[in-house]
Amino acid sequence: MRMYDIISKKRNGDSLTKEEIDYFIQAYTKGTIPDYQMSALLMAIFFNGMNKEETVALTLAMAESGEQLDLSDIKGIKVDKHSTGGVGDKTSLVLGPMLAALGVPVAKMSGRGLGHTGGTIDKLESIEGFNTHLTKKQFINNVNTIKIAIAGQTSNIAPADKKLYALRDVTATVDNLSLIASSIMSKKIASGSDVIVLDVKTGNGAFMKEEDQAFELAKAMVEIGHAVGKETYAVISDMNQPLGYAVGNALEVIEAIETLKGNGPKDLEELCIHLGSIILKGAHYVNDLEEGKKRLKETLDNKSAITTLKSFIEAQGGNSNVVDDYNLLPQAKHIEPIYSPTSGYIQTIETEKIGIATLILGGGRETKESIIDPSVGLVLHKKIGDRVETGEPLATLYANDVEKLKNANQLFLEAYTITKEEPKKEPLIKGYISKENL
Amino acid sequence: MRMYDIISKKRNGDSLTKEEIDYFIQAYTKGTIPDYQMSALLMAIFFNGMNKEETVALTLAMAESGEQLDLSDIKGIKVDKHSTGGVGDKTSLVLGPMLAALGVPVAKMSGRGLGHTGGTIDKLESIEGFNTHLTKKQFINNVNTIKIAIAGQTSNIAPADKKLYALRDVTATVDNLSLIASSIMSKKIASGSDVIVLDVKTGNGAFMKEEDQAFELAKAMVEIGHAVGKETYAVISDMNQPLGYAVGNALEVIEAIETLKGNGPKDLEELCIHLGSIILKGAHYVNDLEEGKKRLKETLDNKSAITTLKSFIEAQGGNSNVVDDYNLLPQAKHIEPIYSPTSGYIQTIETEKIGIATLILGGGRETKESIIDPSVGLVLHKKIGDRVETGEPLATLYANDVEKLKNANQLFLEAYTITKEEPKKEPLIKGYISKENL
Repeated sequence: MRMYDIISKKRNGDSLTKEEIDYFIQAYTKGTIPDYQMSALLMAIFFNGMNKEETVALTLAMAESGEQLDLSDIKGIKVDKHSTGGVGDKTSLVLGPMLAALGVPVAKMSGRGLGHTGGTIDKLESIEGFNTHLTKKQFINNVNTIKIAIAGQTSNIAPADKKLYALRDVTATVDNLSLIASSIMSKKIASGSDVIVLDVKTGNGAFMKEEDQAFELAKAMVEIGHAVGKETYAVISDMNQPLGYAVGNALEVIEAIETLKGNGPKDLEELCIHLGSIILKGAHYVNDLEEGKKRLKETLDNKSAITTLKSFIEAQGGNSNVVDDYNLLPQAKHIEPIYSPTSGYIQTIETEKIGIATLILGGGRETKESIIDPSVGLVLHKKIGDRVETGEPLATLYANDVEKLKNANQLFLEAYTITKEEPKKEPLIKGYISKENL
Repeated sequence: MRMYDIISKKRNGDSLTKEEIDYFIQAYTKGTIPDYQMSALLMAIFFNGMNKEETVALTLAMAESGEQLDLSDIKGIKVDKHSTGGVGDKTSLVLGPMLAALGVPVAKMSGRGLGHTGGTIDKLESIEGFNTHLTKKQFINNVNTIKIAIAGQTSNIAPADKKLYALRDVTATVDNLSLIASSIMSKKIASGSDVIVLDVKTGNGAFMKEEDQAFELAKAMVEIGHAVGKETYAVISDMNQPLGYAVGNALEVIEAIETLKGNGPKDLEELCIHLGSIILKGAHYVNDLEEGKKRLKETLDNKSAITTLKSFIEAQGGNSNVVDDYNLLPQAKHIEPIYSPTSGYIQTIETEKIGIATLILGGGRETKESIIDPSVGLVLHKKIGDRVETGEPLATLYANDVEKLKNANQLFLEAYTITKEEPKKEPLIKGYISKENL
């Protein structure tokens, strides 16, 4: 088999066989196919796409390129939730303990933030002592005992995807549905859970700006999941404004804790309960979604979720006193409100700019090598549809550098559009994909 | 300027500016843009093409990437002829001395053969002592004194094209009109002639199998030439059978000499006189094509062309006695006829197979590193439209290896289709492009 022929075939619009896909993924991972041939193939895929069979084959080849976690030592049906990335998305921090409190084993590998989006691992690491580098034994043991473990993705999960993604990132070949879907799913499949629920974000703060693109991606991933025998579901949810009010690592931990205490933002709670009910039904813990929602709400009311969060933090070496004392989290030196320059209704929020304002403050990563400042970020006071008067605070900024604070403040104000007329409110949940409605 | 943005722009179907094209050619030549980004861009160009302005900018950027020959020390209007490559195409060996005999300065840089096509430099080197590595001073001096010099292309002519072509060759991005046209024209422009006549081959032995593709390529190259101030013309000529009868280096030299003696194949003589008349008119040596043809024919009749060939061979260190004694050329050990298995008319010849049969015998290059055997090849006895009887020789093979001879023989027979009905003869000259009929 020759890489030249594979490039040529895809360039001409033909479909690649499973053997051809296995060949180039294996050879590329080993380094016997050079980057320049792979990037030519990626660009040909960008233009000519991949059909369902090709996408499934690519996903499996990448999942099989490295370690595949064997979670069979964990009792019960293992579940995982994955978000395609947004601003202020602390869903995993809330949903994980809720599910665990119901006895559902949550065995989750999470990523770090990049660009304008955050990552669960970074958020957890803002808790003193919290260790995300678990051995496989610790990971499995924690899930068996307290029903939840969240670890950073090891470098040996889907190494082909890692190498390919780095190449796509510098050759303008990221934006292809099959490549995006297979990249996400290869890692989920290698991570070993039985039930996967995908939260596909859409809107101006998401990678998928257009709703129809988000639906396509959701469908592609659910198709892949079922093709390889994983119960897979996808929810398409709104990212035209941050989720909840807090953006920034320690600030999001506080909001997640508040949500588990029953005092969280409505949208965040709604999304967690919605995703959670799909997981519970998918894993056969409940018979229908309504029952699932009821059970999840009970974990907030009866404090079992917040208790589980404490056990979870302790089990991974963190100081669980943060749950009751937010002063134990990293604190920013400068805390300043941003005042509204005008009166009216919040019409739109350019969510990516909110993410970038947080990045500027030091709360995000410009490159993979950037070091995060967990204390900084912002808390919104007004979201879409809210009324604001001139001089009223739109948000509060948390910073450690006056210059950065000034720049973030300016970018934040650019992100808000305030108009006289009240906007129509969009639903948070845009859609749902399961194998029944592919 | 960032290569990522340039790839992304072309991928999205936008046109690149001259500044962007200059940037990536310069940076790629220097090695500051990696191959993997360039191959992604090449594939995006394959899909989205380049407009006329982009193609001209690319051509100039590549021409300017290395040495640009200054031929101003040569008196008169310098002319060059370039063929896109065919089988049995020894036009330069015939036309060069004819033009020189008329006092027209022929300053030609030529290439070597690759794959199923031959190269002028390889053919000349089958003459004992012939030196194609001339210094610039020798080159200019020879053109000034005997009006002709043919040298191998130095590595410093359009190095960007050389590097790009090597990358295209392994990433399935050769087949794009703008990339093909700019590759050829960048070398022609850097080689310094004033008048360029392009012989664009079309048919089953050419790179451009389809006639409309050949016309498009011809137009693109004539457009580029005029955009940079070179008198440029293109002839589209048939390559559905070898040109003349001889294929193979020393065998083609003999046929070229015979043609200069006035005993050559009709098609070869016709093409040389046709191309030559365009050159003579383009360089203002004659007023019209008919006058040009007449003057060229005279060089055969009055022996001035064959005399010039002798001077040309001598001036480049070769043994000019070959002109009168073909035994001085390398001789093959095995000379065997191929007999026709049937009676009828030659309907079609798969010309590429004839080229590959020569390659198998050792007369061509499989890779750039292959070493050529100048003595081997084949001489056709029957071409399209000719009548042949069972057992009559179709061709004679010249070989140095019995196994290779057997394989070439078999491939040769596969190339011929012999039918009962007489085929319609196609014209040799398919079209002509000048700035007047772009």
